Amino acid sequence: MPPVDPKLLKGFRDLLPADVLFRDRVIARIKEVYERYGFTPISTPALEYKSILLGYGDEASKQIYTFQDPDGNEVGLRFDLTVPLSRVIALYRDLPRPFKRYQIQPVWRYDKPDPGRFREFVQFDIDAVGAKSMLADAEIIAAMQEALSTLGLPVKIRFSNRKVLNSMLIYAGLGLEIAKPVLRVIDKLDKIGLENLKRELGPGYTDKSGDEIEGLGLENEQILKIESFITLSADTRADTLDAVTDLFKDVDGATEGIGELREIDTYLESLGISSEQAVVDLSIARGLDYYTGPVYEAVVLDKKAGRVGSVMGGGRYDDLIGQFTGQPVPATGASIGIDRLVAAVQKMGKISARPSTADVLVTVMDKDRITDYIKLAKTLRDAGINTELYTGKPAAIGKQLKYADRMVIPIAVIAGSDEFESGQVSVKDLGVIKREETGIKDRQEWVEKKIGQETIPTTELIAKVKSILGK
Amino acid sequence: MPPVDPKLLKGFRDLLPADVLFRDRVIARIKEVYERYGFTPISTPALEYKSILLGYGDEASKQIYTFQDPDGNEVGLRFDLTVPLSRVIALYRDLPRPFKRYQIQPVWRYDKPDPGRFREFVQFDIDAVGAKSMLADAEIIAAMQEALSTLGLPVKIRFSNRKVLNSMLIYAGLGLEIAKPVLRVIDKLDKIGLENLKRELGPGYTDKSGDEIEGLGLENEQILKIESFITLSADTRADTLDAVTDLFKDVDGATEGIGELREIDTYLESLGISSEQAVVDLSIARGLDYYTGPVYEAVVLDKKAGRVGSVMGGGRYDDLIGQFTGQPVPATGASIGIDRLVAAVQKMGKISARPSTADVLVTVMDKDRITDYIKLAKTLRDAGINTELYTGKPAAIGKQLKYADRMVIPIAVIAGSDEFESGQVSVKDLGVIKREETGIKDRQEWVEKKIGQETIPTTELIAKVKSILGK
Repeated sequence: MPPVDPKLLKGFRDLLPADVLFRDRVIARIKEVYERYGFTPISTPALEYKSILLGYGDEASKQIYTFQDPDGNEVGLRFDLTVPLSRVIALYRDLPRPFKRYQIQPVWRYDKPDPGRFREFVQFDIDAVGAKSMLADAEIIAAMQEALSTLGLPVKIRFSNRKVLNSMLIYAGLGLEIAKPVLRVIDKLDKIGLENLKRELGPGYTDKSGDEIEGLGLENEQILKIESFITLSADTRADTLDAVTDLFKDVDGATEGIGELREIDTYLESLGISSEQAVVDLSIARGLDYYTGPVYEAVVLDKKAGRVGSVMGGGRYDDLIGQFTGQPVPATGASIGIDRLVAAVQKMGKISARPSTADVLVTVMDKDRITDYIKLAKTLRDAGINTELYTGKPAAIGKQLKYADRMVIPIAVIAGSDEFESGQVSVKDLGVIKREETGIKDRQEWVEKKIGQETIPTTELIAKVKSILGK
Repeated sequence: MPPVDPKLLKGFRDLLPADVLFRDRVIARIKEVYERYGFTPISTPALEYKSILLGYGDEASKQIYTFQDPDGNEVGLRFDLTVPLSRVIALYRDLPRPFKRYQIQPVWRYDKPDPGRFREFVQFDIDAVGAKSMLADAEIIAAMQEALSTLGLPVKIRFSNRKVLNSMLIYAGLGLEIAKPVLRVIDKLDKIGLENLKRELGPGYTDKSGDEIEGLGLENEQILKIESFITLSADTRADTLDAVTDLFKDVDGATEGIGELREIDTYLESLGISSEQAVVDLSIARGLDYYTGPVYEAVVLDKKAGRVGSVMGGGRYDDLIGQFTGQPVPATGASIGIDRLVAAVQKMGKISARPSTADVLVTVMDKDRITDYIKLAKTLRDAGINTELYTGKPAAIGKQLKYADRMVIPIAVIAGSDEFESGQVSVKDLGVIKREETGIKDRQEWVEKKIGQETIPTTELIAKVKSILGK
């Protein structure tokens, strides 16, 4: 039989060891912060009834992988973690409230794949269900800020409020029925810039690639009013809120949304989140239809990370869960796209990962002494040191060292009959650690030369290895 | 609109916080052991081309969830982690060898669901690819043993060898073409007992529920020879191997498989795995068709755990990966069904989990002092203590304590205006820890009485909380 073609589906990918170890480290750090805020995990199935997954509106529904299962049910792969949470809240009526849950699972979207955008990606969500208080929103903003800072990312949280955006529509003399398309255009500010944004609100324009972008056809005066709103910004959150209060002084009902933002501002102060770390930004709307109050997102500031954009976003959605429970349940939460975040951390964060988990490779020189090598490995493992025993094809020591080198294993242990007879062992620092100090870039140089190699009594092995590892 | 019915698909389930925290703890412990042996992680997509997933044979293929994706591709949800590994080996030709990978991901099987058997479940696999040496098998057996022992489970590893089982067929005067059905019957020994096993090899029998079990129709002499083989067992692995050597002294080619088992025995000795911890058990065959050499499984010994059976199993499969690479690649590995294992650990292991990650609940008595409560929470979090700030509906302190109680949060912090004015705070030990010591079963008693409540200067809060938590 000809071999099976080992190809991947378009938009999907494998993560090899260094990728997984890196990603898991990012996830672990975020989890630590979220748990410090008292969030607690749930896990839901990948497959749900299609009827449950359709709660997102038409546009999202097109991206859901649906099919008929062998029982004849219409089913689909989960599209996000918010609808499964809503189902859980409706199914287990006796869950405590507030229910502050986190969830780390892949989701699937039949989206146009491009570099950095995949059809399967891991989301890491936090939500507070049953919490009407703006304190819940403020805590999520603070937790987002802290989690992303822990990763070494220079981030800024930007937040606004859908109610305030609705006031803006009134202020601009527009009806709520046009909210969706207007907010969608506003959300593009970062991507297309203010001038094109204004053109898209108005007559439309031709973009760089020559595509005709249809405009919403708003009048100039309306567009200017929208501009005056989304460009409002002051040095502090409080000053920005004063400015919008002033701008909307004649708008009926404008105080409610602004009041919520003022509450969040106060709570953030107490949580130690400065106006540098989290700003009121009236230009953010967040695409999803179901937001009802505060909306927030985290953006990476540094240009080194390239076009990372928003790595995390969310908001309050007081009506969504009601579709499942039949009665309103307030909720607010944020979602991280882990894959996009990992890309940003890889470029500019303070985490690193090797492709191996082993700190030591015990090489095998003399096949007849195999039990001695095994015992060396066991001694190291018993001391809590991650140790790989070379199990590959019998090979020259140089080849085994190259293997260690490829796996970026920091230490090799080498012994032959002579060493075993005399109760000794050679320990070779492969330079993962020292290389950085000495500035020698070429790892091969460390492998070939006997740099960092030392023969010591076997009784001193653990101490030696720990000292090289800096433990 | 009527609410959406929040039902789950049959055979699928949600994990609520205590379940996830428990499972994650089990996974973390196993991972720690596997990493100590130098295994390193990969992650693959849930969806694969159907052509790739069909490498399992007809029986398994019936259980694969397949469908046509929106691009028109025939795709399926992964059925296990071994075929994706094979695809990865074929796709990334420059991966180091041996490639010792672990993988922790859900798999999907359209199987008959029953209690403890789900259609989505998490597998935790380790495999050594490119390692011909029996040392790789021995290390996997040792890692399995150590991982399961770490969980507090009384386990025994049983191992055998497909080559030895083939010798048994020759010994019994049977052809290799009958290997599959014979091995399948032998695999049932634990479930049906020796007498029914013999009947199933022979004329068949009627089981307890009245079902007719068809027999293979072997002759009595053949069955007795099989019996003499599968019941061979001695006090040590070496003695069992001596016995089978003696039994097969006239069987052509019997030495190869026995020799492999002898090698594994020697390596296990050096790895510190006794004959109590891992035995040669000639009655295990492991169902899968693709095993070519050693096969192994872990069984839970204690009866408290109920019918747990094998929680982990695997073997050597030197021909499977070749279906993808076009040339043979030796490989050996084991798979844990995490959900079944978790059930065993819950019954008899030494791990516990609460439904919450928070160690402290900061209660809110006086809504006007909210920023003071926030600052208390921040102080605790900054000291690394997982802290939930009550964000629910304004409620009497008793109700908030009940919430803490339900979430099994060990400590509540309580303060009103008086305390804040005097720089004090009340700390209530909710008894999660103390209750066990005093033997008071009813947690409610701890909540209602002022047991364990103490008013202290706020400056002593961290120290007090840490002392209650035993940190």
